[in-house]
Amino acid sequence: MNYFPNIKKIKYEGPASTNPYAFKFYNPEEKIGGKTMEETLRFSVAYWHTFTEDLSDPFGAGTAIRPWNAYKGMDLAKVRVEAAFELFEKLGVPFFCFHDIDIAPEGSNLKETYQNLDTIVSMIRDYMKDSKTKLLWNTVNNFTHPRFVHGAASSNNADVFAYAAAKVKKGLEIGKELGAENYVFWGGREGYDTLLNTDMKLEMDNLARFFHMAVDYAKEIGFDAQFLIEPKPKEPTTHQYDADVATGYAFLQNYGLQDDFKFNIEANHATLAGHTFEHELHYARIHNMLGSVDANQGNPLLGWDTDEFPTDIYAATLAMVEIVKNGGLGRGGLNFDAKVRRGSLEAEDLVDAHIAGMDSFAVGLKAAHQLVEDKVLDHVVEDRYKSYTEGIGLDIVEGKTDFHKLEQYALGLTEIKNQSGKLERIRATLNQYLLKAYAE
Amino acid sequence: MNYFPNIKKIKYEGPASTNPYAFKFYNPEEKIGGKTMEETLRFSVAYWHTFTEDLSDPFGAGTAIRPWNAYKGMDLAKVRVEAAFELFEKLGVPFFCFHDIDIAPEGSNLKETYQNLDTIVSMIRDYMKDSKTKLLWNTVNNFTHPRFVHGAASSNNADVFAYAAAKVKKGLEIGKELGAENYVFWGGREGYDTLLNTDMKLEMDNLARFFHMAVDYAKEIGFDAQFLIEPKPKEPTTHQYDADVATGYAFLQNYGLQDDFKFNIEANHATLAGHTFEHELHYARIHNMLGSVDANQGNPLLGWDTDEFPTDIYAATLAMVEIVKNGGLGRGGLNFDAKVRRGSLEAEDLVDAHIAGMDSFAVGLKAAHQLVEDKVLDHVVEDRYKSYTEGIGLDIVEGKTDFHKLEQYALGLTEIKNQSGKLERIRATLNQYLLKAYAE
Amino acid sequence: MNYFPNIKKIKYEGPASTNPYAFKFYNPEEKIGGKTMEETLRFSVAYWHTFTEDLSDPFGAGTAIRPWNAYKGMDLAKVRVEAAFELFEKLGVPFFCFHDIDIAPEGSNLKETYQNLDTIVSMIRDYMKDSKTKLLWNTVNNFTHPRFVHGAASSNNADVFAYAAAKVKKGLEIGKELGAENYVFWGGREGYDTLLNTDMKLEMDNLARFFHMAVDYAKEIGFDAQFLIEPKPKEPTTHQYDADVATGYAFLQNYGLQDDFKFNIEANHATLAGHTFEHELHYARIHNMLGSVDANQGNPLLGWDTDEFPTDIYAATLAMVEIVKNGGLGRGGLNFDAKVRRGSLEAEDLVDAHIAGMDSFAVGLKAAHQLVEDKVLDHVVEDRYKSYTEGIGLDIVEGKTDFHKLEQYALGLTEIKNQSGKLERIRATLNQYLLKAYAE
Amino acid sequence: MNYFPNIKKIKYEGPASTNPYAFKFYNPEEKIGGKTMEETLRFSVAYWHTFTEDLSDPFGAGTAIRPWNAYKGMDLAKVRVEAAFELFEKLGVPFFCFHDIDIAPEGSNLKETYQNLDTIVSMIRDYMKDSKTKLLWNTVNNFTHPRFVHGAASSNNADVFAYAAAKVKKGLEIGKELGAENYVFWGGREGYDTLLNTDMKLEMDNLARFFHMAVDYAKEIGFDAQFLIEPKPKEPTTHQYDADVATGYAFLQNYGLQDDFKFNIEANHATLAGHTFEHELHYARIHNMLGSVDANQGNPLLGWDTDEFPTDIYAATLAMVEIVKNGGLGRGGLNFDAKVRRGSLEAEDLVDAHIAGMDSFAVGLKAAHQLVEDKVLDHVVEDRYKSYTEGIGLDIVEGKTDFHKLEQYALGLTEIKNQSGKLERIRATLNQYLLKAYAE
Repeated sequence: MNYFPNIKKIKYEGPASTNPYAFKFYNPEEKIGGKTMEETLRFSVAYWHTFTEDLSDPFGAGTAIRPWNAYKGMDLAKVRVEAAFELFEKLGVPFFCFHDIDIAPEGSNLKETYQNLDTIVSMIRDYMKDSKTKLLWNTVNNFTHPRFVHGAASSNNADVFAYAAAKVKKGLEIGKELGAENYVFWGGREGYDTLLNTDMKLEMDNLARFFHMAVDYAKEIGFDAQFLIEPKPKEPTTHQYDADVATGYAFLQNYGLQDDFKFNIEANHATLAGHTFEHELHYARIHNMLGSVDANQGNPLLGWDTDEFPTDIYAATLAMVEIVKNGGLGRGGLNFDAKVRRGSLEAEDLVDAHIAGMDSFAVGLKAAHQLVEDKVLDHVVEDRYKSYTEGIGLDIVEGKTDFHKLEQYALGLTEIKNQSGKLERIRATLNQYLLKAYAE
Repeated sequence: MNYFPNIKKIKYEGPASTNPYAFKFYNPEEKIGGKTMEETLRFSVAYWHTFTEDLSDPFGAGTAIRPWNAYKGMDLAKVRVEAAFELFEKLGVPFFCFHDIDIAPEGSNLKETYQNLDTIVSMIRDYMKDSKTKLLWNTVNNFTHPRFVHGAASSNNADVFAYAAAKVKKGLEIGKELGAENYVFWGGREGYDTLLNTDMKLEMDNLARFFHMAVDYAKEIGFDAQFLIEPKPKEPTTHQYDADVATGYAFLQNYGLQDDFKFNIEANHATLAGHTFEHELHYARIHNMLGSVDANQGNPLLGWDTDEFPTDIYAATLAMVEIVKNGGLGRGGLNFDAKVRRGSLEAEDLVDAHIAGMDSFAVGLKAAHQLVEDKVLDHVVEDRYKSYTEGIGLDIVEGKTDFHKLEQYALGLTEIKNQSGKLERIRATLNQYLLKAYAE
Repeated sequence: MNYFPNIKKIKYEGPASTNPYAFKFYNPEEKIGGKTMEETLRFSVAYWHTFTEDLSDPFGAGTAIRPWNAYKGMDLAKVRVEAAFELFEKLGVPFFCFHDIDIAPEGSNLKETYQNLDTIVSMIRDYMKDSKTKLLWNTVNNFTHPRFVHGAASSNNADVFAYAAAKVKKGLEIGKELGAENYVFWGGREGYDTLLNTDMKLEMDNLARFFHMAVDYAKEIGFDAQFLIEPKPKEPTTHQYDADVATGYAFLQNYGLQDDFKFNIEANHATLAGHTFEHELHYARIHNMLGSVDANQGNPLLGWDTDEFPTDIYAATLAMVEIVKNGGLGRGGLNFDAKVRRGSLEAEDLVDAHIAGMDSFAVGLKAAHQLVEDKVLDHVVEDRYKSYTEGIGLDIVEGKTDFHKLEQYALGLTEIKNQSGKLERIRATLNQYLLKAYAE
Repeated sequence: MNYFPNIKKIKYEGPASTNPYAFKFYNPEEKIGGKTMEETLRFSVAYWHTFTEDLSDPFGAGTAIRPWNAYKGMDLAKVRVEAAFELFEKLGVPFFCFHDIDIAPEGSNLKETYQNLDTIVSMIRDYMKDSKTKLLWNTVNNFTHPRFVHGAASSNNADVFAYAAAKVKKGLEIGKELGAENYVFWGGREGYDTLLNTDMKLEMDNLARFFHMAVDYAKEIGFDAQFLIEPKPKEPTTHQYDADVATGYAFLQNYGLQDDFKFNIEANHATLAGHTFEHELHYARIHNMLGSVDANQGNPLLGWDTDEFPTDIYAATLAMVEIVKNGGLGRGGLNFDAKVRRGSLEAEDLVDAHIAGMDSFAVGLKAAHQLVEDKVLDHVVEDRYKSYTEGIGLDIVEGKTDFHKLEQYALGLTEIKNQSGKLERIRATLNQYLLKAYAE
């Protein structure tokens, strides 16, 4: 293993370290709330952004200088596996994730594609034997190839539906073989470019049929991973059917799928949908639908998916508050579905970027843990809603009232007094907690 | 009646007319598809924007010069009723809509508010006897008064919940008394400004409890109006619980309310949520949830609710396509939830604006009817999805397949051929149909 | 010539035609306002979107099925020239545009690139002899190759600056050789991804130095094309220095370049900058800086450059109003910097798309001409601003007043009366004019 | 003075303090880089948001509970002055800012308005004698009153132009009397709602005439304040002429006003224009146009001006980097053009909010100072651009080259090597510095 020769195993050196290849905040062994950081944060490297991405953009060819750039085809696929496990070990990450075509090239037909996958999956399985890094989730890429131009499970072309199904079938088998904790569906092309030529009803029905068949097949083969839908509102399509968590939840309920799926929530997808990251996590959590997290960030001034490595400690903290309150991520994890900027063209930037992301969520975890332990936000909420713990409020919550009683009560009110929401003070307190995470 | 002295009853004069106070496209008696324009379009005047609005904005005091500006309190309320029915008649609209506080001022307590409402409702009922204009829907304003600062049904303050309930109870009684076809809930404050101080789970539970009580009370008093939720993603709140149709549908399903509600869809709310107007109508339609329409438009370059009168004939046409395909609006209508621009400060601008909106939707209806009759979009869709009418596609749709069969099929495919979506041609055809609406 | 075998020369067949391969509104010979449609509209085909584009997107490989897909390298370049002139003739367009690498592949070094260009330019020159289609403008692509990752003229790497200069030098020579009417600069990478590592002052200074050298060299070789800057706010960069017309104008003035440049205004770039298309045209026009137009459109609900073919007849009409008021486009034209949608994957879609765009601007021209001839908007403006044609208003405009006199005047005012801006009536009138364009 | 009876003079108690009414980071006397925090930060209270604002929004009446709510007219104006100076003293702020109508109500005519102003200005002058709090800037509100519906200096109505001029004349006199350091122009209505009825050229010409007259009058009366333009792209208008710093700079250069004005840059206006706060500061700084700062923040997911108190320590730090590099703010300051949230309805929230803002900028100052002192970003920039300090790069910068020489150089290049921009590492370092600000 020698693809990152300048990089040694990354260690925790503390916040004052000037060594760029050291963690300043992420200390995997440090216990917070009874669990180590590593156990709580469950970091995962995204194969596609780290080993497959070439940093092209719609106006430019790839810029990435990678030690594996000279290889092609299956040789490239094998070299990437070697490089991946080298980096996993150097970063010390407990998980990774991939799409089928990230790890092995498509063949000239489906059978050949299966063979390519089998070869690489076997190689990965061997590497996993000697590695602590496990598979957080896998998925299949049913969006890049031109055959998916009009969708996959929601394509207008039944051949494409069948092809997509075959790919997912294989994906489920691979997930089982490699012990994946979850299986993800991101419907990159499951949506429409224009309503003018679209039968949305048929497409959504077909998408649901597809999901039901996937659930059935996973049960059949005994693959007990958590199924996850990853919402995104648009891009590449104009409108994606799994637009955000609430929209996905409407769909799952409508088709009787709500018990078989949870959500894989991505920060940048949340903001593209007009929500904060924490909103999506919160909505999923209170509906018991929080599965896993794609930890990245967008640029709020840009209208496309920038998939940046997460460095915003506000977002990391508020996300960790949700995760801590959820009792952790269960079988999910924090997957860095993030790519280095196009200008970060050297292989070492991949290391920098993961350190930046891991350190940011470590800060977030510490701050969140302290906020939760000190019940900072809980006290705010308890105080604000205390009217529902007694009198008419308790009647409302317990279902003991109706419009007649409420009207009688309202007619008797002489004054209604509201308290301040105190947002400015809460934000100042949040800053104190954020800055404390380092000081302690 | 003499509040609009320069305005005579507006008549249809055809597209070449240079009379600003004439319809150029809206001919109420003209039959299209077996029904008159008036029957299909079911136009409604919004009381608040037309009779209450002063055209203030966050940086400016009201500019509206109105014949009733000199009046105050209940006198003002009465004058507005007179002016309203004068305008209804001059415009020839079949419907109007209002919130409680549009028609009568709040009193110093709830009882006095009820009395004010009773006085005006009685006056309106009298006017309705001599008018063809009916009540499309009513609602209550549970968002303007400071008591609703933290929400109404989702307030953290149980007193406010009770007060809001009392107002809706009265609203339902008024709706029954005036024969409203629908009853609308727009949750202007039902959401949050910040998650940091919010118990979203309790708030959503309470909102559902509130809706259930409203349904129960309407049944109790025999008010058989269609209940409608009006989605909006934000403004005034940072996040509103009924963010868009899909989000509202998730909520309704989750709380067992999906059979008691449909949606009142507003164009500008759709665009604020990142959707086209037609998307929201279409989503509602295919889920059998399309109730009524707030016909306005936003400015796609501005990030707030501009509530402009609808003049975009593209939007009007694509909306009417959905409505025609829905078999019409049923008990719903096209309510002009639209205000004249701040600079359109004269009373006559109200007339101009309604003519502009009615003519635009008349163009839209004609174009949509022709598009539907000629099956322009239907042929596109039939052609695109024909693979689901035979072979493997039919098996998929009929539930006769699974991942095994689909994989076998996919392994046998030698080539997958996709057809062009032909969006550019469809758009050109749409332009032809739009321009034809006038020529014919 | 046989690359579009199913397509015959496109003719005008009028609005009722059902032949998809006919113009319904664009009649090249029809005179409007003393000039033919062809003379006024000066349509141009964009080489890159029509002959080079493969319809890939950030999440998908190219889908375009093109008759030249089987060719490679210089053979491909030559076939494209043949196909291009076939399509130019079939569409009857008077102009085309290209970047250097659209027409010829880069070689393994700059010298080889020059040779490739020389070969193809020579071929194009020969084709132009037998064609009515002229070169509206050319430019060089200083953004796709990885060397431009950090900018071209604003790169932090002086080698890149030099390389970019050499490419522009060659571009100016090619423009002269082929008789280009304009030369365009679009600074796709001239901006920054992050301020954190950027010396904006040096970059802007260098950009100005680059432009001055380009002006000098064009003069030296006697290339008298109009130089044009094409503003765009972002994408691919986070911030582009030529963000919009006003920003570009600030830059040009600051560096003494305002007499040597005008603007090439793109509709989709305008909307990405938060402006309407007509705003950018208008701002340029009143500052005498309107050069040429990239005629396309964006999707206001999407945050990236969709470069759609223009079919919105509102936008086309309001753009044509500006162009008609500008006395035409001078040496500029309407270049379809537009690509078919990813799903419009067949070669014939290119034809459909150009017909759609040409017909839309034909409608726009007719409506705009009539609006201008009838002084519809001019009368509105004259009426609104008449206070500046007499009294204190005239004094203001003529510079005959000061704060003392104005204060005295204001102190004497008893009432200020504003008139309605009548926006709703104007919009209704605009609809009448749009719909008339077809009827006549 | 007893309007904030629960509040004592706010003191610095350090980051661990749990006293909400204490500074945790802002220590006015602490020296950083040779100046005290107070001297560098130059905080200012905005009269309008703190003493006039009622927290109404477009969908709701005011919620603010204020000790002066019971007063009216001139009594209210006087009580506000008392309350203001009480709060200034308790917060220890060195500056405040106001519009004319913030401090005194408009009279029934201009003369009476002047009298009201004279009364209150005289009162303020007296209070200032015993206070350390000075006037950072004043301005006049030429946007709220209905007379400004179509603009002030850019109104279509010359009477309004004159009236606006009289108000500014008085504003300049007041500024002189109270020793204002700056005079601000925010053109809330100087723009258009629609181009369709607008003569943009005349309006911009008039705006320039207005500014020239203001400059002349200030000189005449010996008022030597720095004139500042405050850019904002939209809201209340659809398009404002001073859209952002670059647009304003284009205007100033075009009309020969660039030496008489600098910019007052507001964070929320920057983001509404699609820019970061630091972008606007940076652009102004490198053009020597940075005057003063409106320190607030927006919500990137909302499309309107939320004017929140600044609590984002990233934004505060990056803003302070620009200010430190500018050698400080000169006569400008950090004015809290920020309002408490509608739900923060108690008077004490005003205190919380200012503490939150002052503490955030104190953190920002410390982090920025350390970043600048350690040359963290300077080293990045020096390293990235070093090619311009020698060889061909130096020739470029020194103007010693042309396209011939550059082409020769480029033809000789065998390879162009770009370095990584290292954004991820820079962001991680920024986090380290932010968290350090507290630890030290």
